Amino acid sequence: METRTFAIIGLGPIGCAAGALAWRRGLQLVAAVDRDPHLAGRDPGELLGTGPTGLRVTPDLESALERAQPRLALHATSSRLRDALPQLEPCVERGIHVVSSCEELAYPWRTQPELARRLDTAARAGGAVVLGSGVNPGFVMDKLVVTVLAACAQVEHVAVRRRLNAATRRRPFQDKVGVGMTREEFDEASRRGRIGHVGFPESAHLVADAIGAPAARDLDEHLEPLVAGARTIAGDRLIEAGRVLGIRQRLVLRAGGRECVRLELEAYAGADSEDAIRVAGEPSLDLRFVGGMSGDVATAARLANDLLQIEGLQPGLRTLLDLPIRYHKPQRGDRK
Amino acid sequence: METRTFAIIGLGPIGCAAGALAWRRGLQLVAAVDRDPHLAGRDPGELLGTGPTGLRVTPDLESALERAQPRLALHATSSRLRDALPQLEPCVERGIHVVSSCEELAYPWRTQPELARRLDTAARAGGAVVLGSGVNPGFVMDKLVVTVLAACAQVEHVAVRRRLNAATRRRPFQDKVGVGMTREEFDEASRRGRIGHVGFPESAHLVADAIGAPAARDLDEHLEPLVAGARTIAGDRLIEAGRVLGIRQRLVLRAGGRECVRLELEAYAGADSEDAIRVAGEPSLDLRFVGGMSGDVATAARLANDLLQIEGLQPGLRTLLDLPIRYHKPQRGDRK
Repeated sequence: METRTFAIIGLGPIGCAAGALAWRRGLQLVAAVDRDPHLAGRDPGELLGTGPTGLRVTPDLESALERAQPRLALHATSSRLRDALPQLEPCVERGIHVVSSCEELAYPWRTQPELARRLDTAARAGGAVVLGSGVNPGFVMDKLVVTVLAACAQVEHVAVRRRLNAATRRRPFQDKVGVGMTREEFDEASRRGRIGHVGFPESAHLVADAIGAPAARDLDEHLEPLVAGARTIAGDRLIEAGRVLGIRQRLVLRAGGRECVRLELEAYAGADSEDAIRVAGEPSLDLRFVGGMSGDVATAARLANDLLQIEGLQPGLRTLLDLPIRYHKPQRGDRK
Repeated sequence: METRTFAIIGLGPIGCAAGALAWRRGLQLVAAVDRDPHLAGRDPGELLGTGPTGLRVTPDLESALERAQPRLALHATSSRLRDALPQLEPCVERGIHVVSSCEELAYPWRTQPELARRLDTAARAGGAVVLGSGVNPGFVMDKLVVTVLAACAQVEHVAVRRRLNAATRRRPFQDKVGVGMTREEFDEASRRGRIGHVGFPESAHLVADAIGAPAARDLDEHLEPLVAGARTIAGDRLIEAGRVLGIRQRLVLRAGGRECVRLELEAYAGADSEDAIRVAGEPSLDLRFVGGMSGDVATAARLANDLLQIEGLQPGLRTLLDLPIRYHKPQRGDRK
């Protein structure tokens, strides 16, 4: 079987981790793109831990794609679809299939229908598949839920609650949930849109569509800081009383006059991690991830596993409703 | 959209329950086949609870298919592929897509490759999809596991343990696990092949293939009765001391010199139901169905939901590895 080639677009922690897993699964890295001037010219193999590749990180996406002509691309630059589009379009126009960590791409049809249509049109024209994936969105609050619902005769309500220990996550994640901030810092960061999980509306609409909820929907999103009542030690973080431990974020989706989907995330230093999916229906179900579905490695794995799978889909903007997700065994590299 | 038609082949409890759910999901019943002379001539709508259909149950499969020309078929006659084939082949040869509860059909490529190939060839020739589905096999010990593994970078071992209260299940299930039998009755029923869950090897191979285990495998299956130490009351069953409460059944799959998959089922009167999926890998995962994944309604739902979905697959003998399973909302009928 011919070796499939891929590009990485965005060499942050997620792009590098997912890229390393894709490489271990036998894909051949042929291009690495990042706009960070500190990365330009470096061998991506250094960043991925794969050993020398003979490649150089470049900020110039279009030239890199023209030169390398990858078959697949792993995209991890932004949570926002608007910011991701300038990288996604040049890929799909060239027939390059993309799996992206962009949270808003996971299910943009309801939230950003115009951008979704535009990307879908470009992908169909280019004969490429583009898919948003990850753990959240992409798994715990949507794809896994939809899969579990396949055992239900009737579904009335779906609730997903994630509680995760922010102290064991990488620093950018801790910053996103305000760990260690004063209330003033938190409020300021919040005003600048730097606090909180992106992707709740996408997960909620995906689940609501899967249970056949009416299209006229009302989404109520709420976010609040959780403040340390006493000095708290968690992981390598020490948080003084009165400082922020993390967040509680909630989305309630109502359709046809009643609540259909409720998503809750508590991400704070010292939390006892657990994920729970509760379905009210026939049968009712209560599913738990004891100890939680851990973060970054799982996100990277979701992206790499889906990248190995994406070519089976019809060209266009696809969602996880379309993909029978699975694991792909590494072909090389040691288990770290 | 045109109304899709379907036939039910096998009007036992599962066929009827799944058929009713398929009907509620908007499919039109056009044929009902069962070899039981007590059912011949009855309106299947009586058995399904859908109201009069104008149809009559017939034992003659081929005439029924010729006359009704259904697009889809729901098959629920047997756990054994050999016994199911005489009903499956006439369907797929006519281009009728089939979802079946036949446990051995869930993943027959490793266990019965010749029959699998034969059915696959017939289905491809007829342009039909044929798929084995259900809860077990079809969900808890395989499809759900494979879906969860999509969040793993590396998988070393998978263990699934189901513990379920046989006393709350229908009588044929209780008989299959020996509830209330003397040891002698149990041993006799066991010798006749009437005891135990069918489908362990299929689930184990599906998971083993999904984690990329070597093809040279060694399966060790073990089944033992669980005997009441004291008089036990569970559901509407009273079991005297010394009588059988149910079974413990286990399958261990080794490949490449090490254990890869372990499946365990405890089904007995009075059990505290819970299903657990444990993955050793990167990350390790511990998933639980608190209170268990309940039985018959979930099985019927799995079949009906997959039936709504099957036409998207390539013709041939397909498995749940191929299908992005999901829920389909009922279009009619009251929630009971």
